[in-house]
Amino acid sequence: MGTVLAGATICGSSGSFRADLRMDGETIDAVGFGLARPGDDVVDLEGRLLFPGGVDVHTHFDLPLAAMSSADDFASGTAAALVGGTTTVVDYATAFRGESPSRGIEAWHERARGRAFCDYGFHLALTEWSEAVSAELADVVSGGISSFKLYMAYKGSLQVDDGTLYRAARRIGELGGLLCVHCENGDLVAERAADLVASGLTGPEGHGRSRPPLVEIEAVRRMIAIAELAGCPLYVVHVSTAGAMEAIVAARRAGQSLFAETCPQYLLLDESRCERGGLEGAAFVLSPPLRPVGNGPLLWGHLARGDIDVVATDHCSFTLAQKAVGLDDFRLIPNGLPGVEHRLSLLYSEGVVRGRLSAERFVESCCTAPARLFGLYPRKGLLAPGSDGDVVVFDPRKEWTIRASTQRQKVDSTPYEGLGVKGRVESVYLRGRQVVGGGSLLDGTPQGLYLRRRLFPK
Amino acid sequence: MGTVLAGATICGSSGSFRADLRMDGETIDAVGFGLARPGDDVVDLEGRLLFPGGVDVHTHFDLPLAAMSSADDFASGTAAALVGGTTTVVDYATAFRGESPSRGIEAWHERARGRAFCDYGFHLALTEWSEAVSAELADVVSGGISSFKLYMAYKGSLQVDDGTLYRAARRIGELGGLLCVHCENGDLVAERAADLVASGLTGPEGHGRSRPPLVEIEAVRRMIAIAELAGCPLYVVHVSTAGAMEAIVAARRAGQSLFAETCPQYLLLDESRCERGGLEGAAFVLSPPLRPVGNGPLLWGHLARGDIDVVATDHCSFTLAQKAVGLDDFRLIPNGLPGVEHRLSLLYSEGVVRGRLSAERFVESCCTAPARLFGLYPRKGLLAPGSDGDVVVFDPRKEWTIRASTQRQKVDSTPYEGLGVKGRVESVYLRGRQVVGGGSLLDGTPQGLYLRRRLFPK
Amino acid sequence: MGTVLAGATICGSSGSFRADLRMDGETIDAVGFGLARPGDDVVDLEGRLLFPGGVDVHTHFDLPLAAMSSADDFASGTAAALVGGTTTVVDYATAFRGESPSRGIEAWHERARGRAFCDYGFHLALTEWSEAVSAELADVVSGGISSFKLYMAYKGSLQVDDGTLYRAARRIGELGGLLCVHCENGDLVAERAADLVASGLTGPEGHGRSRPPLVEIEAVRRMIAIAELAGCPLYVVHVSTAGAMEAIVAARRAGQSLFAETCPQYLLLDESRCERGGLEGAAFVLSPPLRPVGNGPLLWGHLARGDIDVVATDHCSFTLAQKAVGLDDFRLIPNGLPGVEHRLSLLYSEGVVRGRLSAERFVESCCTAPARLFGLYPRKGLLAPGSDGDVVVFDPRKEWTIRASTQRQKVDSTPYEGLGVKGRVESVYLRGRQVVGGGSLLDGTPQGLYLRRRLFPK
Amino acid sequence: MGTVLAGATICGSSGSFRADLRMDGETIDAVGFGLARPGDDVVDLEGRLLFPGGVDVHTHFDLPLAAMSSADDFASGTAAALVGGTTTVVDYATAFRGESPSRGIEAWHERARGRAFCDYGFHLALTEWSEAVSAELADVVSGGISSFKLYMAYKGSLQVDDGTLYRAARRIGELGGLLCVHCENGDLVAERAADLVASGLTGPEGHGRSRPPLVEIEAVRRMIAIAELAGCPLYVVHVSTAGAMEAIVAARRAGQSLFAETCPQYLLLDESRCERGGLEGAAFVLSPPLRPVGNGPLLWGHLARGDIDVVATDHCSFTLAQKAVGLDDFRLIPNGLPGVEHRLSLLYSEGVVRGRLSAERFVESCCTAPARLFGLYPRKGLLAPGSDGDVVVFDPRKEWTIRASTQRQKVDSTPYEGLGVKGRVESVYLRGRQVVGGGSLLDGTPQGLYLRRRLFPK
Repeated sequence: MGTVLAGATICGSSGSFRADLRMDGETIDAVGFGLARPGDDVVDLEGRLLFPGGVDVHTHFDLPLAAMSSADDFASGTAAALVGGTTTVVDYATAFRGESPSRGIEAWHERARGRAFCDYGFHLALTEWSEAVSAELADVVSGGISSFKLYMAYKGSLQVDDGTLYRAARRIGELGGLLCVHCENGDLVAERAADLVASGLTGPEGHGRSRPPLVEIEAVRRMIAIAELAGCPLYVVHVSTAGAMEAIVAARRAGQSLFAETCPQYLLLDESRCERGGLEGAAFVLSPPLRPVGNGPLLWGHLARGDIDVVATDHCSFTLAQKAVGLDDFRLIPNGLPGVEHRLSLLYSEGVVRGRLSAERFVESCCTAPARLFGLYPRKGLLAPGSDGDVVVFDPRKEWTIRASTQRQKVDSTPYEGLGVKGRVESVYLRGRQVVGGGSLLDGTPQGLYLRRRLFPK
Repeated sequence: MGTVLAGATICGSSGSFRADLRMDGETIDAVGFGLARPGDDVVDLEGRLLFPGGVDVHTHFDLPLAAMSSADDFASGTAAALVGGTTTVVDYATAFRGESPSRGIEAWHERARGRAFCDYGFHLALTEWSEAVSAELADVVSGGISSFKLYMAYKGSLQVDDGTLYRAARRIGELGGLLCVHCENGDLVAERAADLVASGLTGPEGHGRSRPPLVEIEAVRRMIAIAELAGCPLYVVHVSTAGAMEAIVAARRAGQSLFAETCPQYLLLDESRCERGGLEGAAFVLSPPLRPVGNGPLLWGHLARGDIDVVATDHCSFTLAQKAVGLDDFRLIPNGLPGVEHRLSLLYSEGVVRGRLSAERFVESCCTAPARLFGLYPRKGLLAPGSDGDVVVFDPRKEWTIRASTQRQKVDSTPYEGLGVKGRVESVYLRGRQVVGGGSLLDGTPQGLYLRRRLFPK
Repeated sequence: MGTVLAGATICGSSGSFRADLRMDGETIDAVGFGLARPGDDVVDLEGRLLFPGGVDVHTHFDLPLAAMSSADDFASGTAAALVGGTTTVVDYATAFRGESPSRGIEAWHERARGRAFCDYGFHLALTEWSEAVSAELADVVSGGISSFKLYMAYKGSLQVDDGTLYRAARRIGELGGLLCVHCENGDLVAERAADLVASGLTGPEGHGRSRPPLVEIEAVRRMIAIAELAGCPLYVVHVSTAGAMEAIVAARRAGQSLFAETCPQYLLLDESRCERGGLEGAAFVLSPPLRPVGNGPLLWGHLARGDIDVVATDHCSFTLAQKAVGLDDFRLIPNGLPGVEHRLSLLYSEGVVRGRLSAERFVESCCTAPARLFGLYPRKGLLAPGSDGDVVVFDPRKEWTIRASTQRQKVDSTPYEGLGVKGRVESVYLRGRQVVGGGSLLDGTPQGLYLRRRLFPK
Repeated sequence: MGTVLAGATICGSSGSFRADLRMDGETIDAVGFGLARPGDDVVDLEGRLLFPGGVDVHTHFDLPLAAMSSADDFASGTAAALVGGTTTVVDYATAFRGESPSRGIEAWHERARGRAFCDYGFHLALTEWSEAVSAELADVVSGGISSFKLYMAYKGSLQVDDGTLYRAARRIGELGGLLCVHCENGDLVAERAADLVASGLTGPEGHGRSRPPLVEIEAVRRMIAIAELAGCPLYVVHVSTAGAMEAIVAARRAGQSLFAETCPQYLLLDESRCERGGLEGAAFVLSPPLRPVGNGPLLWGHLARGDIDVVATDHCSFTLAQKAVGLDDFRLIPNGLPGVEHRLSLLYSEGVVRGRLSAERFVESCCTAPARLFGLYPRKGLLAPGSDGDVVVFDPRKEWTIRASTQRQKVDSTPYEGLGVKGRVESVYLRGRQVVGGGSLLDGTPQGLYLRRRLFPK
């Protein structure tokens, strides 16, 4: 007894066609015409689009900072993901200084276990390097974590030096893993921020000025060189500037194994949001910061051409009360924005509807490419026989407005407040079972599975 | 009553998966598991790959030259295409000087009608411009010919000047058509060739020296500028040099609507073939000519990255007797090579098997992209419900050798004589009906349909 | 008995220093301190700058068009040159269709002989090619004309095709000459102009629209390729666009022998002048046309960096009455602006004073480089012992205003009407003899010599 | 009573001409003809070239390392400089960790005072940063030291982090100084060197492998970004790779105030020297290391085009006995080569004579540009009235061979052993007084003056 989604247009990364889709058990069984068998549940979806379930490979749920944790935990975060059409997230488990990799991973399993509404996996973020760490990584990989993250920013906490970057890249390359890096020069940020505060500029508008585009561009160029020397594939997270993309494009053309991710906020918002100052500005503090008007269109171009492979969210939400902690010193504002709920709608409405992005590139960058790069394809990211029955039923005609008051994300603001959007997630299937209907979660029981991920495909 | 191709791997331009494929009538009905219905013919294809039928958008069958015609006519040419897995060709109908477009097209219909074994369409090549020509083009488009060709080379016969290129591009852009251009500077070729002959270099080795890379690069740059000024999408046929590709890549990045085609001979052969001189060299005379060693790998890189959109053949075969006409003056050697039969095998064996090309890019460049650009998608170029049942059953393990003595192409040589190939077309379905089996044509009756093509998709 | 110019700063293309300069007879005798000998005429020039006499290698004096000649002849043009600090001009002698090179050159000698106030040489412009023309060029070179010009624009009159460009470049390269080319695609201009006129846009504003930047950029790229293939050094006259400069810079970096000239009008004026329409607009019609705001600063950058070698004027003046001929059809407006008189003042005031150009690059581009490239160095373009005593005494503090009413050029307008300028030519020495004083010509007798030029230096 | 150098060709950075040169006292008095006055010493130099005294802005004389000092002290080093035609050196005074700037400078004055045969100045190299250091720099500048150096390499001793680079650049920019940086990523070098030693590769050939081109290229890109953010002019010392030059060229074209130095060893030698291993290889250990064949020609191109501003030597000589210290661990080999004696001969013979460099660029890069950039122009680097009488009399026809056995440098090897050279320094004048004749020092008394340098010219 299966489910037949009938009459919709099936959208994939290389084109779309009208056909029915049948799921049997947890997987897709067939795509075509006349698929219904006796006992099947046939759903008439005339006029709708079917997308593969979204894959968001950059989230920070329940992230512990000095004196707080990020606002969305695995329950609220994955519920918001599902409602927005994302059926898989990969979160950054972090081994903080003094913690072993296994300890860091276990802490994240504790955060997620039994709470996740969508399927999930982990990357492992490292904050220091030693022989012991190196030795442990083989087990980490065989345990299903095939991607790692290092930070060139956040001096004094997460930042590592070039020697560590090189050594880690050597090891990860050896293991066949994928290295994800936050590329901003933390030394320069610290000096500039200290200068700004010393000069009396303490409000949120100082945040962006302390980390102008060259701070990212320099770090991206440096990390490209280190990865090349170390022989390790590199995935640059949350690329925010066209200048960094130029360095990435050049290295890719020269044959380096190199990938780029951006986030909706860098495509859609600009630095003027932060320049408002006060709590209103603090709400838009994240790193890398929002960029000047004119940068966004260039990023859209890179995304449309395929120079940017993935759109993820870097979802790391904080309530306004949490943001207020740094009102007198921008260096103390917790960095991050919510976003996991709205990624597909934003990209469809602002991308596909406005003609900036083909429907193919939309599916590729939000579903297929992240699954492929992070070892989940073809189980995730594809609507084809044998793949998981993760299906988004999307109504392209539906118009609605993003509001903090109606969102599922557990925060009291959204960077897109009041934005009119065209196209909406109507229902969602997770492994063959409908979990979202009429835009709402249908069942209060978390059903998300932990996903062991394969190695980055050569 | 349908046909189920069972147990193979279905290969598309965005990935592959194992599933069955069912055809009903002329089209594909479903892709999935358990599709067979009572009465269906189920073919066990365990271990095989299924590709969409190949689409070769650059052939010259039965092309009239001064005192001869090219060796393959529509019968032999399309039969060879089918045997090699190509189910659709688009041939260049030409309105020679003094002929109206409709007269040129009608002449081509006469050549093809009732003789074609695979489906076929026409581009229209123009050799002069006038108000009358311009006026007629709207009818040409509505008659199903949506792409046009002009020549910057062949001074005195096909070559047009920049004013004509501009004026034609304006008109074709207006009509929503796609402009295909042979980019070599014919003036420079004529001068250089005259110098070479005057200096006593009359053999086939003079051909390439008369048209070095800059002759193509210059023309490509010029045509890009003209198309940009005229507001017309441009498709550069048979790009042979990495230098031309650099110009194309730069203009695409700047947002121009611009596409590139190359041919297997530029990927796989080099100028040393022609330098042999005599009849052996004459057999390798074509325009643009074969290039220096080192150029091919750069073209493979462009193809792998997607900078080159399409691999077509420029099939224009001549017998050695025909080639011998120009043994004393290379300017008289008829230009062209056979190739329609071997495109898929060459690209799979030398590309996919050798790791130069992913299977996805192979399908995209040989099947999907040409169908899309020339208004045949999703009917052609795609294995999905609703598409024509044009399917290539490919055995990736089969090893064989290309020989003129065993080819279907009606010529007495092949540029790939003796080349060992891995992977072979086993059987072919055209619109749901098997037409090739065991590597041979199953039926002596031509079944090819003329295809009216839609406009180039924006 | 000599002349000692005492107390000024001597400015050269690699720096400046305070010292005296002594001339004896027609040449410079010494540079230093304590040079005066008994009987010398010692001129106190405290606070002044000394420049080498300016060299303007692009003028059209007394140029015959269909039904008129350009307004300045050799008398008025060279007098204006001298007053403005230019002591040498190189004019374009033209062999019109049907004329032999020697006939064209002789016609120019007739125009200049006995009328020139400053020293002068000729380039030879060719408008067609034949074996006879080719044969004659060796004599032309030995007669002191070492540079040649061809036009890619002006379809139907001066324009030649790519075959001629190639053949001429081959021959000129063989002779060791320098090929100067007007790079605009005349075919495209003709088509676009016809379209504009057909659409009713007949006023002067149509002129620029008929030849947008790509029309020049395309031609520059093409000519670079042709010169490279032919093995001939190339000098691109009046480069007007930053896009053309990019092509030139790239080819120079690749090692090609390639030089660029621009004119003050492209540095200082923009297309808005022409867009005024009517006679006011017609006065600004020249080819290439004035360009959009934003282009000028990029050209200043290229000039400052040395990518542009020479600033010449393309002086080709017409009275407003002459310009009025094309008021109803911009294609009939005679192309050209006056300028030979104001080049040094404009470049000094707008360049050096405004900080866009070092004093060294000013001297290099206006005096030294043109002398060097066109075979006049070190006789011209240099203030050193042994060089001609061509010296400009310049007062850098003097402020004045350019006015048609007070200019020496024999036309009733100037493109710089009302422009305030800082720095002025005070006196000028030609071959050791003062010819300008207090800003005016001191002697009504033309003293200019015809200069036989050497070959372009490798 | 003066000295007249008669009959030679005077060579400058913008051309050469035949004239006499008269010195009176310490300076040049005049350039021209008929300059001799009663009592003058007139020297007939028919057939010779006169160059401005060479300026070598990168030397390390008497440099203290852990357990040794570099072999040439100020006496032997400056004597060798003079014999080779270099009349001015600027040495790197270093404030080691724990030392104040003034202490470091004073130590260098002690090394040089009374021992220098040629004129000399100091840069100040800093190895750490603090408010105290920052405060002291204003005095350093007013004391005649206007350029500073920081190291991105030599982890654990000289290397500073990006925060220090930024802070120092801010301060130096503020003071109007010029920042010189050794650009190699010391972290990467340390990791790679440790890996190589751990793998058993301990010989000198490991040195270069520990610091491949990307190690320099990365650091150059990073430093360019830091200097841009800090608003400080940057001078990259000893650029050794074409890849680094590409980054420099791009930033200069974008308008950054940025300069490049290379050394004869990078132009003329390649990594094969070091690959010989043993003491023979150790003799060629320096940082950055020698590069692959093919890199040198690209650097010559950059030098010829003016992208590289200065050729200096990085003279830092060690005896073979000193080199032998690191035979079992390449990390212990003292880094450096001799060179101050042979710079002009090498550049003339390998550059000008071989056609890689014009005579103008030779003078510019070896004499004029270093004087200009480091605040010594026009006193040094120029043959013009008023400049110091520092003159090199050069015989361009003389052929000789470089040999350690006959060199003046106080070491037992030279990297150019056995190299045949065309052109030789015949005599040298320092501030009007002949100090070298017949290729030998004429006087055993050091006459070198300490030079207070002005600020870098904007």
